[in-house]
Amino acid sequence: MITALAGGVGAARLLRGMVEVVPPSEITAIVNTGDDTILHGLHIAPDLDTVMYTLADAINPDTGWGLAGETWRVMESLQRLGGITWFNLGDQDLATHCYRTQRLQEGAALGQVTAELVRAWGLEIRLVPVTDDLLRTRLQLVDGPEVGFQEYFVRLRHDVAVAGVRFEGAERAAPGPGVLEALAGAETIVVCPSNPVVSIAPLVAVPGVLEQLRLRRDRIVGVSPIIAGAALKGPADRLLREMGFQSSVVGVARWYASWMGTLVIDEADAESAPAVEAEGIRCIVAPTIMSTVERSAALSQTVLDAVA
Amino acid sequence: MITALAGGVGAARLLRGMVEVVPPSEITAIVNTGDDTILHGLHIAPDLDTVMYTLADAINPDTGWGLAGETWRVMESLQRLGGITWFNLGDQDLATHCYRTQRLQEGAALGQVTAELVRAWGLEIRLVPVTDDLLRTRLQLVDGPEVGFQEYFVRLRHDVAVAGVRFEGAERAAPGPGVLEALAGAETIVVCPSNPVVSIAPLVAVPGVLEQLRLRRDRIVGVSPIIAGAALKGPADRLLREMGFQSSVVGVARWYASWMGTLVIDEADAESAPAVEAEGIRCIVAPTIMSTVERSAALSQTVLDAVA
Repeated sequence: MITALAGGVGAARLLRGMVEVVPPSEITAIVNTGDDTILHGLHIAPDLDTVMYTLADAINPDTGWGLAGETWRVMESLQRLGGITWFNLGDQDLATHCYRTQRLQEGAALGQVTAELVRAWGLEIRLVPVTDDLLRTRLQLVDGPEVGFQEYFVRLRHDVAVAGVRFEGAERAAPGPGVLEALAGAETIVVCPSNPVVSIAPLVAVPGVLEQLRLRRDRIVGVSPIIAGAALKGPADRLLREMGFQSSVVGVARWYASWMGTLVIDEADAESAPAVEAEGIRCIVAPTIMSTVERSAALSQTVLDAVA
Repeated sequence: MITALAGGVGAARLLRGMVEVVPPSEITAIVNTGDDTILHGLHIAPDLDTVMYTLADAINPDTGWGLAGETWRVMESLQRLGGITWFNLGDQDLATHCYRTQRLQEGAALGQVTAELVRAWGLEIRLVPVTDDLLRTRLQLVDGPEVGFQEYFVRLRHDVAVAGVRFEGAERAAPGPGVLEALAGAETIVVCPSNPVVSIAPLVAVPGVLEQLRLRRDRIVGVSPIIAGAALKGPADRLLREMGFQSSVVGVARWYASWMGTLVIDEADAESAPAVEAEGIRCIVAPTIMSTVERSAALSQTVLDAVA
């Protein structure tokens, strides 16, 4: 059994390859919910949906988020009404949020609802929200207020300086059913190439997770989301610097070293391998750019072989 | 100044004609919110929307509800997910509910949000929810549980026997801003041909409204929603019988006689005029079937002339 710690796009791509090399029923992905937001009264869970849509081969390949063949009727009408449209929600995607919100209001837990959606999409992987409780990533801007993740990421296009990050609700959140068991029982724990600061850190902030990860350090292998000093997508490079870390594979190694045993870095960073190992973390060099499913599958195989 | 008590389709049609014979800015419609429901987390206000869409000439003329040229992308996707689809929500219509829900969650009152939507649709009429507070029409089924209005009306297609009706929240609801003033100051108060039992009764159940209506009895003129013993649309005939009233213009007169001075009945019921007057209510006979805007306008003129 494989357990993955997952954010959004990068995690989705790695998992899409992983299901080519491991039966999906043997994979549990513990997914970040710190990006979740309530908008128009709807519970939107971007990381869960990105992973789900990608595994269903329904993701929009051009954007990496949202659904292929999407239409925008609701948003077009909402714009005419003067509503909030900076967070773009396609019509088919809205159906997911409608379903989730209705079930949550009926009293179902987020994990239960996620399992229903995964089944509706015909997937066999187990997707588990890290917690069924409230968890919200909040960013304190250098020149502004504290904002929610989506306001930072989408409305402000992560083009603002961040002074600090916190995970609202984390200290009171219980790990979702099966989360600690999936970490305890996994042959390999894979840390997807997600943003360490705002995608993986909220998972680790849920009580009990870090303790379990520390027990499994030798079985934990991560993939660096930083290649040649930059994030392929999103603000991981910038946020690492703002948190006082290098925007490099060495910075990623230092961020994770207390509980991660092995880090896979891209060939572009091969010469940094000794510096990564100087952080006390085993280093493997491999191609990590997942431009095709085949490359994702090859990277997944490398990751799984790393601690096999 | 004219004030109308309004439910959904019948009220919308009368008001659509009224704005042809009176400047819309001189009309206040106090609208039922007992039909409102929360579904998918969205606040849906069917009567407010039917009146608004009809006045904007945007209503679907075939159904009398929803928008013309509507698409159903969200519902189609929701059906694939196994979500609740018995309450059909078009994509453009959903934008209204998204807007309303977001504004309510921001702390705006329903009346304020309604005014914003009315302005966005370019309307000059004043639409006022009878209350900004919770008001929910609940029906006790003879062979079943108590259900909400939409479950009765849409899911069960009002094809079930009703033992009783109540208006949840009414006793604690405050009249919306301007409601009592609009009743006190109107030259004419028009009771639209809406369902007496489930569209007009919830308005009257809000504290203060009945007292104000009784003071204005001579200025109140209603249009019978029952023609030749039957409702043109919906369960008004059936519900009147179930509440112990005749399904006839005489039953309607008896239902309203304590606070309504004049009732307009259809030519098809002309011979019942003496029986209506025997209920202590003035009776006017006129064509009341609003198959065109012109006929609605003519009926509106008749109604306004009745107490001028």
